[in-house]
Amino acid sequence: MKVIVVKDYDELSKVAAQMLIGEMFQRHERVNLAITAGTTPIGMYEKLVDEVKGKSYFDNVHYYNFDEIPYKSGCREGVTIGDLRELYFTPAEISEERIHILDGENYEEQDKRVAEAGGLDAILLGIGADGHYCGNLPGTTKFTDFTTKVVCDEAMKERIAPHFENRAETPDFYVTMGPRSVMNARHLILFASGKKKAKIMKAFVEGAITDEIPASILKLHPHLTVILDEEAAQFL
Amino acid sequence: MKVIVVKDYDELSKVAAQMLIGEMFQRHERVNLAITAGTTPIGMYEKLVDEVKGKSYFDNVHYYNFDEIPYKSGCREGVTIGDLRELYFTPAEISEERIHILDGENYEEQDKRVAEAGGLDAILLGIGADGHYCGNLPGTTKFTDFTTKVVCDEAMKERIAPHFENRAETPDFYVTMGPRSVMNARHLILFASGKKKAKIMKAFVEGAITDEIPASILKLHPHLTVILDEEAAQFL
Amino acid sequence: MKVIVVKDYDELSKVAAQMLIGEMFQRHERVNLAITAGTTPIGMYEKLVDEVKGKSYFDNVHYYNFDEIPYKSGCREGVTIGDLRELYFTPAEISEERIHILDGENYEEQDKRVAEAGGLDAILLGIGADGHYCGNLPGTTKFTDFTTKVVCDEAMKERIAPHFENRAETPDFYVTMGPRSVMNARHLILFASGKKKAKIMKAFVEGAITDEIPASILKLHPHLTVILDEEAAQFL
Amino acid sequence: MKVIVVKDYDELSKVAAQMLIGEMFQRHERVNLAITAGTTPIGMYEKLVDEVKGKSYFDNVHYYNFDEIPYKSGCREGVTIGDLRELYFTPAEISEERIHILDGENYEEQDKRVAEAGGLDAILLGIGADGHYCGNLPGTTKFTDFTTKVVCDEAMKERIAPHFENRAETPDFYVTMGPRSVMNARHLILFASGKKKAKIMKAFVEGAITDEIPASILKLHPHLTVILDEEAAQFL
Repeated sequence: MKVIVVKDYDELSKVAAQMLIGEMFQRHERVNLAITAGTTPIGMYEKLVDEVKGKSYFDNVHYYNFDEIPYKSGCREGVTIGDLRELYFTPAEISEERIHILDGENYEEQDKRVAEAGGLDAILLGIGADGHYCGNLPGTTKFTDFTTKVVCDEAMKERIAPHFENRAETPDFYVTMGPRSVMNARHLILFASGKKKAKIMKAFVEGAITDEIPASILKLHPHLTVILDEEAAQFL
Repeated sequence: MKVIVVKDYDELSKVAAQMLIGEMFQRHERVNLAITAGTTPIGMYEKLVDEVKGKSYFDNVHYYNFDEIPYKSGCREGVTIGDLRELYFTPAEISEERIHILDGENYEEQDKRVAEAGGLDAILLGIGADGHYCGNLPGTTKFTDFTTKVVCDEAMKERIAPHFENRAETPDFYVTMGPRSVMNARHLILFASGKKKAKIMKAFVEGAITDEIPASILKLHPHLTVILDEEAAQFL
Repeated sequence: MKVIVVKDYDELSKVAAQMLIGEMFQRHERVNLAITAGTTPIGMYEKLVDEVKGKSYFDNVHYYNFDEIPYKSGCREGVTIGDLRELYFTPAEISEERIHILDGENYEEQDKRVAEAGGLDAILLGIGADGHYCGNLPGTTKFTDFTTKVVCDEAMKERIAPHFENRAETPDFYVTMGPRSVMNARHLILFASGKKKAKIMKAFVEGAITDEIPASILKLHPHLTVILDEEAAQFL
Repeated sequence: MKVIVVKDYDELSKVAAQMLIGEMFQRHERVNLAITAGTTPIGMYEKLVDEVKGKSYFDNVHYYNFDEIPYKSGCREGVTIGDLRELYFTPAEISEERIHILDGENYEEQDKRVAEAGGLDAILLGIGADGHYCGNLPGTTKFTDFTTKVVCDEAMKERIAPHFENRAETPDFYVTMGPRSVMNARHLILFASGKKKAKIMKAFVEGAITDEIPASILKLHPHLTVILDEEAAQFL
């Protein structure tokens, strides 16, 4: 594990973008990246769009989402891929054949599909204040899980409901790459910004590896890079 | 994790030797291997000695022990390195400058030393019927530990005493690369032979990741190869 | 360039087999190997068949031929792939979907096809007494060529005619991966055995890089391993 | 070979900087970069200084110069290292122990020193209108050379004299990593800007591999990235 502490959110966004661009350039052959939706990467995608849009020299880069909350009716694509399109794929004009969608239908094929494509070169992850990453929330997946379906109890439904304008679309399950799927990537990049992440980052960096903090397992990866801004790193 | 099942101990020994030789050939620059003592590798070292002895084209290969039980008086080298010398280094005529000894004195420098040498390319591990690997026995190290000293209680002293002709030499501690040190290697190779390992291999391959089976954590490594003979694999 | 000198043809065959097996084990994902027909590898394939036949753990390994002399009538597969089947694919029971045939029809797609499959991990090459490798004979390809068709003049037809029982099948052209296609592989392994190769090996190892010795260009590859027996190395 | 064409010098500088930063981030262990002096990289170093200065997370990055024109009297460091200090090392505050100087005294040890440090991860090269790279000018080194000393004839002395305020300091020789030393790096990055490079870039990309254009040999490297601005690429 290498921990990089930067000044603020803007620098965090820049360094994360540099790291992904570095992955894109590392090989002329196909490069596979799994990337995160959410709020932390917003600044990074803004920078990344400028560097990637219209650049045919990045046509070797393929993208994966690592979790998905589907619409119950199946009327449209899921929440994660929708966010990724809005934040990055659409403004960066990533062609459809380079977007590899994980959804509620195909999740059982995800690990095989990724392996056959050569494996993930890198996966960019956020972390929740509760220690979750991807859809690996406390009490959901086990450390031994590959990509899996998580059945939502009422509390979980309540938690994910705000993603849906029409609450009736809240699904009974979501899907996520599990701990073993994530650990199979060649490079894990985890980033966190702001005071609200300071406590979990202390627990993550200095604390035990425990089910209660799902992300804690990632510390065992041979190539994990953690990027924090000063606020997120303040308790280290 | 890739599980390779072979017929018997002889084939296990051959495949493990092939895999280490493959690591030795993978680069012309320095290659770093951490290797195990014990009974499982005896057959492999016999084969390896034939392939390595007198071969100057393997002069780029450096060796590390990953745990050590020192003599209390310090009158001689520890148990592990002594075994490795007898099984492999001496008959294979490995020169002293390519043997990097971990012992009771220098264990705090082990992780830094390995990193500065470029990291471990591979680590060959056995597994105990209790799920231990290296000196990571149930109830000793934590998943977050790097190379560390384990203080021996009376039960542990009893357990390690048979290594010493003169029981007064039984030490109060031993040292071992911890879970995080092991997980930092680029390739983990774990092998097991015989009926007495069948139960733990089922638990390892199919069971949970838990402190009670220290080796279970290794399943999360992105490049773990498990070699089993049919007896060890019989419950899978 | 690393030059490995071994005692005799048998040891040469063993070391070449070890090196290929090392490549097969280096990754759990797909591994791509281009391998040579001819007389030098006969001993190696004998050993390799024993190690590979019936071993499902090598199902990730894919094979490529790097040149081909087609039958003029197209009545059957070409000379090279025919030899590779006889020497290796058939006795080792390599499944058809892991054999990627280069022939007179598809050669223009070869480089793209290889790149899309992730590139060649290794290519095993023999060398002729005239310094040729694959179908890169003096006076045929240029250093800048990728996979290409070589039109045969009468002298060349005379040279390749012995491959055909029915001389009327001698083709007007053959195909070969060119210098740049070969140099794109991650690991080049070149081997030579016997007195009849001693002179060219001296020129190869110690001499200039020149069109007159097509293989001389291979010395510039960042990861070239040369295996010679004592007879082939006698003038070094 | 992958050719990346960008709009102008500013974008060229940005992309080259991104590529080097990508190399720096690719591994937590030591990363070795050989970098160029001259005019082409001036814009890149300006950007790089901003990204690297004061960033302890780049302390794993080590730097090498790949050629040197020494002062005849030996009164001070050579021309190349002097330029690199001015352009990059000094403003970026690179610590002295991470600067590995090639000079007129130690050039015979350069290849061994680089190999023992793990080899070069990347080398950033400019190209002259005459097709030279590093100190490999037409008529000087041979394709088979490793790091070497080039004795200067009168024409060469005239050519390098402008580097010296006091012409009496013009040396009788310079040193350079030769073709084989350069080809041993894992990633070659060659960049060129402006109309004055357009003709040589056409010859480089589309022409033959020949002693007359020393850089032409680099096309044979398995991982060569070429960055050109539109002016330099205008004849492609």
